Amino acid sequence: MVGIGDDTAVVEVPPGESGALQWLLAVDTMVETVHFNAATMAEADVGWKSLAANVSDIAAMGGVPRHALVSVSVPQAWEPARMRRLYDGLYACAEHYGVAIVGGDTTSSPLHLVVAVTVMGTVEAGKAIRRAGAQPGDAVFVTGPLGMAAAGLHWLLAAAANGSAAASPQQAGGAASSPPPCVPLAAAEAAGTAALVQAHRRPAPSVRAARMLAARGTVTSLNDVSDGLASEAWEIAEASGVSLALRESQLPRSGSLAAYAHRVQVEPLEWMLYGGEDYVLLGTITPSDALAAKAELAAAGLPMFIIGEVSAGPAGVTLIRDAEPQKRRVGVGQFTTEHPREPIAKRGYNHFAQ
Amino acid sequence: MVGIGDDTAVVEVPPGESGALQWLLAVDTMVETVHFNAATMAEADVGWKSLAANVSDIAAMGGVPRHALVSVSVPQAWEPARMRRLYDGLYACAEHYGVAIVGGDTTSSPLHLVVAVTVMGTVEAGKAIRRAGAQPGDAVFVTGPLGMAAAGLHWLLAAAANGSAAASPQQAGGAASSPPPCVPLAAAEAAGTAALVQAHRRPAPSVRAARMLAARGTVTSLNDVSDGLASEAWEIAEASGVSLALRESQLPRSGSLAAYAHRVQVEPLEWMLYGGEDYVLLGTITPSDALAAKAELAAAGLPMFIIGEVSAGPAGVTLIRDAEPQKRRVGVGQFTTEHPREPIAKRGYNHFAQ
Repeated sequence: MVGIGDDTAVVEVPPGESGALQWLLAVDTMVETVHFNAATMAEADVGWKSLAANVSDIAAMGGVPRHALVSVSVPQAWEPARMRRLYDGLYACAEHYGVAIVGGDTTSSPLHLVVAVTVMGTVEAGKAIRRAGAQPGDAVFVTGPLGMAAAGLHWLLAAAANGSAAASPQQAGGAASSPPPCVPLAAAEAAGTAALVQAHRRPAPSVRAARMLAARGTVTSLNDVSDGLASEAWEIAEASGVSLALRESQLPRSGSLAAYAHRVQVEPLEWMLYGGEDYVLLGTITPSDALAAKAELAAAGLPMFIIGEVSAGPAGVTLIRDAEPQKRRVGVGQFTTEHPREPIAKRGYNHFAQ
Repeated sequence: MVGIGDDTAVVEVPPGESGALQWLLAVDTMVETVHFNAATMAEADVGWKSLAANVSDIAAMGGVPRHALVSVSVPQAWEPARMRRLYDGLYACAEHYGVAIVGGDTTSSPLHLVVAVTVMGTVEAGKAIRRAGAQPGDAVFVTGPLGMAAAGLHWLLAAAANGSAAASPQQAGGAASSPPPCVPLAAAEAAGTAALVQAHRRPAPSVRAARMLAARGTVTSLNDVSDGLASEAWEIAEASGVSLALRESQLPRSGSLAAYAHRVQVEPLEWMLYGGEDYVLLGTITPSDALAAKAELAAAGLPMFIIGEVSAGPAGVTLIRDAEPQKRRVGVGQFTTEHPREPIAKRGYNHFAQ
C-alpha cells in the first residue's frame, strides 16, 4: 500500500487470499568481521545473504516471505557504488523470492558494515510448523546438501590468506588504499570450488519445498540449518522431547564437498554436521508420507533426503556410522548386530574463523 | 502466538478487533558514536530510545504499536550486565507502550554498539495518516514542546567535555580502563537541565494523542519530529504540494529550554526548528475541528499547540516572526501590515556533533 517514503510502510495480505492467515516475523543481522569480511563476500553477496537468512526462517515455519525492512549501517569510508552493489544483491534476492522491500533505515557506521534485515511472512492460521512436534517413528529429512557453505568459507579464507584475491586480474592496477579485494569467483572456478563458494555467498532457502511440505499436513517439525545440522537437530530433539538418529550413509554429500575435503584432508562430516549456514530445511515427517512427499518434491525438481528416524526421548541426537556392523549385547544372552552409534555433540557453529 | 524461541514469531491481530486492519512497519537504527556515545546515553537509555523512535513512527501514521523485533550487535568488550541494562530499557519502553518484543538477533560487534529495532503496528484499514493530505486553510499543530532533546544533547556534550561525568560520585573508584562514564542525571538536576536530558534520553512518543486525533477523521497529514520541525514541515509541504506558515509566537517553548538557551547564549529557535529527536507529532487538521481536537486532548491531559496554517503551494515553509508588524506592498497603491516572514531552510538534523 505505502512503501518507502512515509513514516512507516502500510501492508496487508494480498487480496484474493483467505483472511485466515497469521504473520511470521524474523530478524537476522550480519556484521563485518563477525560473519564476513571484504575478502569472503562482495557487497552484493552481503545484500543477498542478509535477506536470504531471513527468508529461510520464514520457510522453516512453512510460510511465504512477503515484506522486508532493511537497516544498514554503512562505514563512513564507503563510496556510494559499494552501497549500490549491496542493494543490488538485496533486491536480486527479494525479486527471486517475491519479497517486497517496504522500508529501511540507512545510518553511518564508524568502521564496520552492519546489515539487519527483518522479514514478514504469512502462513495459514494455525499451520505454522514449529520445532516441537516430532513424534517417535517419524522420518527425519533435509532438503539439500550439507556442509557446502562451510567448505566454501574454508576455501575463501585460505585463498584470501594466500593472496588469491590480490592476484586476481580484476584487481590489477587497484589503488593500494582500496579495501582488501573480494576473492573472485573465477579463482574458485579455477580451483573447482565455485559451487562451495556460491553456497556460502548466495544461499538459496527452500521456500518452495517448505510450502509443498506444509500443504501435506504431515510435517511434524521443521528448522532451517543456519547453525549446523547438529545444532538444529538438537533444537528439534529438545523442543519435541525425542531422540533423533541420523544415518551417516544417508547424509547428502555433494561431489565438490567430497573432493575439496579430500584435497585439504578435512573430515567432511565435520562440515556437514557443524558447518552451518546451509539454509536447507531439516524436519520430521509422518513415516507413511515420507516417500510420497519425496516423490512430490522430486517431480518439482526439488531434492529431499531421508536421513534418519525419530525415537522416544530423552532428547538427544545420535549418528549411525557407516562402519562395519558390530555385535552388541542387548540382554542376557541376547545380541544384535548393528552399525556403531555415537552421540552428536550439541555444539553449534562459530560463524567465522578470526 | 509464538514468541522468541522458534525460527520466527507468529502474530495475529488480537481477537475481538475488527479484521479490517492494515499493518504498519518501521525500522530505526542507533549506532554508537553516530547517535550516542557512552557519556550521553546509559545502556538502558539506548534501549528505551531505539524502541521509542519506532513507536513514534507508528504514532505518526495514526496507528497502534504492537510487536517489535530487536537486532543488537554487542561490542566484544561488553560485560553481560551492560547488555541486561540495554534490555531493561527496551522492555521498559515496550511495557509503557504495550509492545510485545517477539523476536531478536544478538550478534557480536568488533567495536561499536548497533541497535536496529523493527516495529509492527496496526491501523484501521484505509485510515493511515500520510504526509500528503494537507489542504490550504488547514491548521498546523504539534503535540509537544520542541528543541528540548537537542538542548539536552548540547548540555550532555558540554558536561562530558568538562568532566562532569568523571567527577560524579557514582564513578568514584572506577577502574581507569572502564568505558567513559555516562553523565549522571543528578548532574543535570544540579544544573537545572534534567528535563532537557530526559527529553534526549527517554523520548515519549505521542501514541495516545495520535489515536485520539486519528479517530476524529479530520487530521489531513501527520509526521513525527525525528529530524527537526523544519525538516518534517518540509516533508509535509512537499508531499502535499502546499506551503506551511509557522508562527514563532505559537511554537511551544519549555521554560527549561529558554533558561538553558539564555545561559549558554544560543538562539533557542535554532534548536526548536532544527534540533530533532523531539518525537512529538507535527500535523495538519481541518480548521473547523482544530479547537475541538485541542479540547479533547486537553481533557485527557495531552498538549496540542496550533502553530500555523496551510496555504496553497508551491511547496515551502515560512516562519512568521515575532518582530513588530511592518507595512508591505501587495499591489498598486495597496499595502498590508503584518509580521515579517522568512523562509525556513529545508536542512535537517545532524544527529550528533562529533
